[in-house]
Amino acid sequence: MELQRHDIDYYSLHGIWGAYSSFVLGRIGRGAGVVVGDVRPPETGLFVGYRVGREEPHLFPFSSGRKYGLGAAAYHADESSKNIDEHYRRATWFKPEEMERFIYLSGEEWRTKLMSFRVFSFFGEVPDPATVSRASARSAFRPSILIRLSFDNSEGNGPMTGLFGMQGIRRPLSDSTDGALLGMASDACFGFAVHPGADVEEVMDWSVIDAAFNGNRSLRRLASEGGLRFTIAPGRKAEYIIALGVFRDGIITTGRRAYAYYTCLFKDLEDVLENALDEAEESLFRAERVDALLDSSGLSEDRRFLFAQAAHSYLANTELLLSETGEPIFVVNEGEYQMMNTLDLTIDQAFWEARFSPWTLRNELESLEEYSTYEDSMGLAFAHDQGVDNCFTPRGRSVYELPGLTDCFSFMSYEETLNWTISACLYTNLTDSWNWARDKRKRLSSCLRSIIARDANGDGIMDRDSDRCEGGAEITTYDSLDISLGQARNNLYLAVKAWAAFVCLEALFRKLDGRETEESRDAASAARAAAATIVANMLDPEGFIPAVFERDNRSCIIPAIEGLAYPAFCGAPEAVRPDGPYGELVRALKRHVETVLVPGVCIDASSGGWKLSSTSNNTWLSKIFLNQYVAEQILGISDERVTRDSVHASWLKTGSADFAATDQVDSTTGKDLGSRLYPRLVTSILWLGQMSRQNQRAV
Amino acid sequence: MELQRHDIDYYSLHGIWGAYSSFVLGRIGRGAGVVVGDVRPPETGLFVGYRVGREEPHLFPFSSGRKYGLGAAAYHADESSKNIDEHYRRATWFKPEEMERFIYLSGEEWRTKLMSFRVFSFFGEVPDPATVSRASARSAFRPSILIRLSFDNSEGNGPMTGLFGMQGIRRPLSDSTDGALLGMASDACFGFAVHPGADVEEVMDWSVIDAAFNGNRSLRRLASEGGLRFTIAPGRKAEYIIALGVFRDGIITTGRRAYAYYTCLFKDLEDVLENALDEAEESLFRAERVDALLDSSGLSEDRRFLFAQAAHSYLANTELLLSETGEPIFVVNEGEYQMMNTLDLTIDQAFWEARFSPWTLRNELESLEEYSTYEDSMGLAFAHDQGVDNCFTPRGRSVYELPGLTDCFSFMSYEETLNWTISACLYTNLTDSWNWARDKRKRLSSCLRSIIARDANGDGIMDRDSDRCEGGAEITTYDSLDISLGQARNNLYLAVKAWAAFVCLEALFRKLDGRETEESRDAASAARAAAATIVANMLDPEGFIPAVFERDNRSCIIPAIEGLAYPAFCGAPEAVRPDGPYGELVRALKRHVETVLVPGVCIDASSGGWKLSSTSNNTWLSKIFLNQYVAEQILGISDERVTRDSVHASWLKTGSADFAATDQVDSTTGKDLGSRLYPRLVTSILWLGQMSRQNQRAV
Repeated sequence: MELQRHDIDYYSLHGIWGAYSSFVLGRIGRGAGVVVGDVRPPETGLFVGYRVGREEPHLFPFSSGRKYGLGAAAYHADESSKNIDEHYRRATWFKPEEMERFIYLSGEEWRTKLMSFRVFSFFGEVPDPATVSRASARSAFRPSILIRLSFDNSEGNGPMTGLFGMQGIRRPLSDSTDGALLGMASDACFGFAVHPGADVEEVMDWSVIDAAFNGNRSLRRLASEGGLRFTIAPGRKAEYIIALGVFRDGIITTGRRAYAYYTCLFKDLEDVLENALDEAEESLFRAERVDALLDSSGLSEDRRFLFAQAAHSYLANTELLLSETGEPIFVVNEGEYQMMNTLDLTIDQAFWEARFSPWTLRNELESLEEYSTYEDSMGLAFAHDQGVDNCFTPRGRSVYELPGLTDCFSFMSYEETLNWTISACLYTNLTDSWNWARDKRKRLSSCLRSIIARDANGDGIMDRDSDRCEGGAEITTYDSLDISLGQARNNLYLAVKAWAAFVCLEALFRKLDGRETEESRDAASAARAAAATIVANMLDPEGFIPAVFERDNRSCIIPAIEGLAYPAFCGAPEAVRPDGPYGELVRALKRHVETVLVPGVCIDASSGGWKLSSTSNNTWLSKIFLNQYVAEQILGISDERVTRDSVHASWLKTGSADFAATDQVDSTTGKDLGSRLYPRLVTSILWLGQMSRQNQRAV
Repeated sequence: MELQRHDIDYYSLHGIWGAYSSFVLGRIGRGAGVVVGDVRPPETGLFVGYRVGREEPHLFPFSSGRKYGLGAAAYHADESSKNIDEHYRRATWFKPEEMERFIYLSGEEWRTKLMSFRVFSFFGEVPDPATVSRASARSAFRPSILIRLSFDNSEGNGPMTGLFGMQGIRRPLSDSTDGALLGMASDACFGFAVHPGADVEEVMDWSVIDAAFNGNRSLRRLASEGGLRFTIAPGRKAEYIIALGVFRDGIITTGRRAYAYYTCLFKDLEDVLENALDEAEESLFRAERVDALLDSSGLSEDRRFLFAQAAHSYLANTELLLSETGEPIFVVNEGEYQMMNTLDLTIDQAFWEARFSPWTLRNELESLEEYSTYEDSMGLAFAHDQGVDNCFTPRGRSVYELPGLTDCFSFMSYEETLNWTISACLYTNLTDSWNWARDKRKRLSSCLRSIIARDANGDGIMDRDSDRCEGGAEITTYDSLDISLGQARNNLYLAVKAWAAFVCLEALFRKLDGRETEESRDAASAARAAAATIVANMLDPEGFIPAVFERDNRSCIIPAIEGLAYPAFCGAPEAVRPDGPYGELVRALKRHVETVLVPGVCIDASSGGWKLSSTSNNTWLSKIFLNQYVAEQILGISDERVTRDSVHASWLKTGSADFAATDQVDSTTGKDLGSRLYPRLVTSILWLGQMSRQNQRAV
């Protein structure tokens, strides 16, 4: 698959699954490299390139020119630092038109005439640690990715010198491995390595570019730049596989004390890198299968780009921990905000996880159930998140929610309870985990009771704010949009989501019990009430349902249809059929979305991209993807009103180029407005259609 | 002791002994706070101040105004970030003339009319871990310091609100301690806390200043600013003790894998802080004794400042590790360069360690002996250092030294071998460790043989470069000075240091053997040869000895006399008497130093400070202090040619104000030229005179 030869100047986060770490690159003339325990692109330089004979060295342009660490000048006070800059000037950075960039689901590639440079960062499914052998666990949870350098010196008269180096390293790996590995590391924390060979050397110097391409020097171990130098004989081509890994030892969290999970499988960084190199062939084979999945999807080039870019940023936010009692704890961190297991993201990421690591979805649901519930006067509710920046909150508390507010940072009690409920139904159905659902039966009943209790007038939709608001008002996941999507009470988006929860619960209870029960009847009756309320709010002849059923609100929102995504995955496909039991609702929502999907309403008049709300320019890509799925595959609207993907792809490549997968963007320009470096855009997996694993080839 | 009310705008590094961590503050309008695993002043803001009634809050000016972490604006894309800056403008920073700053050996203090703020960071002697109980070990190796806030609301009509807060924190400590502590922490890594009380609350918000002084808000756990708020009733004064601690879990080094030593004594940061608060009274008592030591020293105000500033930066660079086999490993890191146990610093810090932690000197000597020796064709030699940035080098290698050079980064084989030899003699004599010396007898013999072997023509001084130079030439610790101090071969500074090594070894061998032996005779004869060579190089009638006995060098250097510092501490006080066995040498060196200590030669003509070499403006404070000691207490020159301390103090307070104790400065301005944030300036302990512990009160 080859994508986008032109717009190549944007960051991608090549997340290392479960390690909360990434290899980040892509913006031209800006930093690139490794980030551990966060997702912000590093400011260090990444030096990848070659020199043929005595020509000028050529390098991919992944450096801002910023110096890092000490230079020789630090020791020669009389000299200015000019010398170092001169080293940089001696190399030529490739111009954009000299390079091609290809984004793959397994990673990405940069090509120039004589060299290519490919990152393999995603290897597909991740098994449940409870079910694998130690050897398989080392393969599955190893915090590493691969990089392949290909050099072409077939036309060369002299030897070609290749370089893979970076700033921010402090030691050569030959030191700690007695030469069994060649490579560079930053303390104990991250590094890259190859197996030794006659054509590979370590280089380490104030300027690794200078050292790599100008003669042979001893390693300057006091420097902070280093890399691997490759020598390709004239007339030859050569390929090298580099393993890049991370390692954080010791307890790395607070609140719930935990280690990085991989620390029970690997001794140190060197162990990770050796194992990654030993198993490189298998990893490359798995990467190939990953790419085949997307290549065979039939998705457009724009969608394949969005899908892959989303996947990489999701992976960057994943973190598998090991509790002090030996239990795995899976966390998805929330991009730039670093919140942990934010439940309104969990539901959106549930489809992805059901496909690639269903046990992580179960792990999150159980962790949320154990640590993130509370009781208010209406019953059980779920907290927004489980902490921030590796600091777990006390039981029943989020870092996000605060009392007394009506806007950002207020409580999301109602929505989060819907989110856990629907996610639990998704997990059960998509993984056929009926015993698990039976275990959770009481909890799911409490959810149903609590959701119903928050509807005082019995019209099926939420009208009572949690006591925790202390006079404030609940909000929704769309916190930083305007009131059309932000207020929870009498909100159209939440009303349809609540309807979906009732429908999913009814199906679940009927399946678990093998018959209709009081609970399934209550769920059904709440679903019918909600549907009726929603339909009754349709404006005629305008043909849309206002976003909030209060104060004459007239905003038009696309996520009215969001809730239609769930029933078909949760044993109630008939509920979303226009001729099904909720046909009136489905037809009303189809009419609604056809009304709003016009330029100037929910299609941005200037860019042509989707605007989630007619009254806000802040639009969210994760939700666009989810609602595109509903429009196309549930409501059957698959024309150019929906396929605005080239606009959406351009947003990530231009307006939000600094922040890899960005969720909140300005619908006129694509400029990042929030939720940068975000995991949530993997809702795009819905474009592949049917989610249950039985129907899919293993990847 | 009260020091310097005027020049108050410079950084101090309040090192936490053994934790390679500091509390850093002092530059006005710049960052302040905690640094862990390094010594660079942080860019975060530190917020210490108060508000009386409805007046404007007043704060000490330890913030650059830079924002840190997310702000509310990150969630409200439509708003500019102006709001946050406005919060800052609402508070008033104290002006320099409204504050007084006092530097103590135990820490420092800032005073204004209604508030003072004192740091207690040095508590005196540190016991050998091999000899203490677990409870004592927790007190001795606890990675914590104390801060005392004093508020005066005795004239107030309304309540006074006090604040101690900072940027870069991520969690309230009440969360993880169930309210047993109130405070803030940055992940698991550092934090500060008090015991709970009715007059203390946690505050955490986008702007902690705003939150502290404007009403009562819930903790915004997503923010990165937080602190403690104190309420002082009208008519009252109040004092609060805050513990500040650090904690790094897991293996933190490479090459030799090791933990922070304190991890075997404390479970986590909370454990550290609780223990620090529980034992605060004892710590304050110990701090008082530390201050009494300096107050009773009779040193001038300038010297007391230099002494204390040096002590704090030394402490900042200390690191006690625990090997995987349970052995303590002590490391002094090298300021901005982060090299580990640099042996040419070890000898200069030996006097300090002999006084406060003699076992750390032994630990370094043994570690250097085990890991940092090599053999060249002339015998045993020592490497320059043991690694950088917590990465230990392979056996026998330094990160610094490289072959083929004649300048910076060349080998220091000869000088480092002298340094280990003299340091071992110092340790033995200053701690009366004759059994230890007997254990090291063979090693010390090898040192003698190796030092002699590097003198090809038998004139007592070095003339052969190590084979490791591979055609280059050895250098001295004065690497970044010019050739007058930089070249090892035929160098006056090294010649006198070699003479001292021979004298110290002779005395040591005679004492160990109880008689003259071949070894003591060889040492004595080498000492005599060296002395004769040095004396023979005196220029008449000029009255000085040139820095290098080659190529008609005519540089004048003060460190000609440096080597005279050692014999009196090593059982050979007669060797430095003008009427002793080396009287001719001593008198020649006195004549030399009197010749060079004139303005325009080794007294900077414009500043009046000491210039180590007449041919370089790069002068080093650690060495100035050491040579001042020799001039005054060995050679009896104690007039204003030597007591240039007000100039030297002003260098640290103005030209090098950004880097706490800076070693290399420009002699005309005091501007930092290198060796910033450095441990080595504790040579100033020599000003106190006699070093052996028997003669000193325990501190």
